[in-house]
Amino acid sequence: MPSISMRGGKVPMSPFRKLIPLADKAKAAGKHVYHLNIGQPDIETPAYALQKVRATDFKILEYSPAEGNASYRKKLAAYYGSLGISVQPEEIIVTTGASEAILFILLACLDPGDEVVIPEPFYANYNGFAQIAGVSVKPITCHIETGFALPDSAAFESVIGPKTRAIMITNPSNPTGALYSRQALEELAALARKYGLFLIADEVYRDFCYDGRPFFSVLQIPGLEEHAILVDSISKRYSACGARVGSAVTRNRDVLGAVLRYAKLRLSPPAFGQILAEATLEVGEEYLAEVREEYRRRRDLAYARLSRMPGVVSYLPGGAFYCFARFPVDSAEHFCRWLLEDFDHQGATVMLSPGESFYATPGLGVDEVRLAYVLCCEDIEAAMDCLEVALQEYPFKKQPAQPLPAGLASR
Amino acid sequence: MPSISMRGGKVPMSPFRKLIPLADKAKAAGKHVYHLNIGQPDIETPAYALQKVRATDFKILEYSPAEGNASYRKKLAAYYGSLGISVQPEEIIVTTGASEAILFILLACLDPGDEVVIPEPFYANYNGFAQIAGVSVKPITCHIETGFALPDSAAFESVIGPKTRAIMITNPSNPTGALYSRQALEELAALARKYGLFLIADEVYRDFCYDGRPFFSVLQIPGLEEHAILVDSISKRYSACGARVGSAVTRNRDVLGAVLRYAKLRLSPPAFGQILAEATLEVGEEYLAEVREEYRRRRDLAYARLSRMPGVVSYLPGGAFYCFARFPVDSAEHFCRWLLEDFDHQGATVMLSPGESFYATPGLGVDEVRLAYVLCCEDIEAAMDCLEVALQEYPFKKQPAQPLPAGLASR
Repeated sequence: MPSISMRGGKVPMSPFRKLIPLADKAKAAGKHVYHLNIGQPDIETPAYALQKVRATDFKILEYSPAEGNASYRKKLAAYYGSLGISVQPEEIIVTTGASEAILFILLACLDPGDEVVIPEPFYANYNGFAQIAGVSVKPITCHIETGFALPDSAAFESVIGPKTRAIMITNPSNPTGALYSRQALEELAALARKYGLFLIADEVYRDFCYDGRPFFSVLQIPGLEEHAILVDSISKRYSACGARVGSAVTRNRDVLGAVLRYAKLRLSPPAFGQILAEATLEVGEEYLAEVREEYRRRRDLAYARLSRMPGVVSYLPGGAFYCFARFPVDSAEHFCRWLLEDFDHQGATVMLSPGESFYATPGLGVDEVRLAYVLCCEDIEAAMDCLEVALQEYPFKKQPAQPLPAGLASR
Repeated sequence: MPSISMRGGKVPMSPFRKLIPLADKAKAAGKHVYHLNIGQPDIETPAYALQKVRATDFKILEYSPAEGNASYRKKLAAYYGSLGISVQPEEIIVTTGASEAILFILLACLDPGDEVVIPEPFYANYNGFAQIAGVSVKPITCHIETGFALPDSAAFESVIGPKTRAIMITNPSNPTGALYSRQALEELAALARKYGLFLIADEVYRDFCYDGRPFFSVLQIPGLEEHAILVDSISKRYSACGARVGSAVTRNRDVLGAVLRYAKLRLSPPAFGQILAEATLEVGEEYLAEVREEYRRRRDLAYARLSRMPGVVSYLPGGAFYCFARFPVDSAEHFCRWLLEDFDHQGATVMLSPGESFYATPGLGVDEVRLAYVLCCEDIEAAMDCLEVALQEYPFKKQPAQPLPAGLASR
């Protein structure tokens, strides 16, 4: 009997996958589970865009060009232009979600054994794409005490080595909600130039920035044309996760060529998803403004509630719809299991993502969790009621969190 | 300035990609180009299935489960059951086209440096997926004189080595149209058992078998449960290439687990495509019967015309909608360029895929082409008129083909 590959047995898994059977069991037992673990928004997809798919009348569902439909790429270039990101349609490759863009970019830019520097905690599936590409992730640690701001250049330089080919960030960040400032990005850009690195930015949450703080793209940094690569997706912006439409955008012609060669292997991105994606670009700005305001309310609520819980360390995230929190528990993973297996508050409980798997450095994040505020305010209130009681009742508490380490100022 | 990866510059390309600019130029100059180079069928997608997508009324386009929608997997298992392939829904992972299934299966079954044996000529994009997975393709040569029948076990054994982990076939074959007999498959199965190999079969053309010859799946071979892996797709069966829905099917639980872990990395197959795919399983058998009959007519016509052209070697393919032909030319690639650049017959010409890139062994297929009979009979007649005249006019002809090598009997 043949055995599977070694890598096939070691694909890094999503931080909350192990908890899913426990959540299923809790629900089967009649408990209500508030899902703050996932990135599936409860927001409606723009009806206009869904209608465009439903109103199609073609008779053959053909392959689209490997690089995506010309009409969609043209409108996408105009959309980026409206954000101050000047790109040509030919500088955009449409991908099957941001996931595929990340994989193709890693393959196009790094060879097996090369290294990519990623601030941790980071989107855990990056580990899996790095494994497929045979490249190593070099983490650089961000800290909850600074709201997970980017470390300074010296910290980055301490992990950049001869095999480092790229720095990869998510801005605003999943899982932390950190929004990186123009200054912080320009420091990264200087490093990219100094060491000849690609700067890959996953910017799928760009529309969800709060408190009037501006979003700044890596493609807006002058002189970074050959280094900057943008990863994008409509999944979160338009609550269209099932469309599976993303893009890889860069002005580096060699990278475009290599990404396109990988894109041609899989022939075509999804046809219906592209029709929907193209239609989202005709959706009025009021849709995103409303969604942004809704997430802002949820963020404020979640943060306000977390701030009042004794021993909990959190911060006000600047973007996306996630935040991290440190809980006064010995093991956040055990706490998450206990929430599902041994706890309920008025028949309900909460599912969270344990923080440890978002870090590549062993031992970090053991008392942290990620919360996705993808439920309506009423449900977030109820979920926070559960959490508050749970943190009181949980039997394996630890002493209150340590004071801020010296020298970690917010950037 | 950072440079792209070495692999990114060497992604193996589709055999006809280099010809596309020439075809565009020919069309811009007013020539009609008959496309016999591509696998995009001109057949209509079942209207019933398109209508199911158009009649959806959900408000949020959510992620589907990474393994695919439960309702689709259940119906797919029933469909396979109706073919005599007994599988459970849990033994099916829905993928983003057959392309993704092939990549995930290679990753799940082989480690970097391992080898997969593939009969050549083969679908050229297998090279690219092998490159991503870091595995080597070991070709085993089939011959046009036998209609590209599978070589015997001794030939396979001559290329199976200590790093060989799998044999991969396409049945019926793209690019040759060869349909493998039960006996030939059972010989492969015996090899898989003897050497502890996976037997991966890309069976996306199973519905297009002609002359009453039966299709036999690797999942129908008794005792091969732990070895056999099926790759599938709705793209060709239902002319739904843009749906991007395929599947990986196996009874080997370890392989299923590993493929599912890779599937979870990319979160979800396309939502609309899955709705369409599920609906195709409710389309009456008369749809496929009509499509099969249409392809059969085209095949007969293409073969009849090729057979009458002096110096052309071909054969009657048993399945799919491709055939190979050997032309009395020095270089089929040059001939294909010449067709687009320097030839026309009553204002029209033909685009073909040069055969060489379908072979991994250097020097093979230089005087061969692949023809895809994806045009209606009238257009195939016109394309064959062009080809007949072109072969007379082409200035770089070679002597008529050699007689059949001894010992190459049809299997």
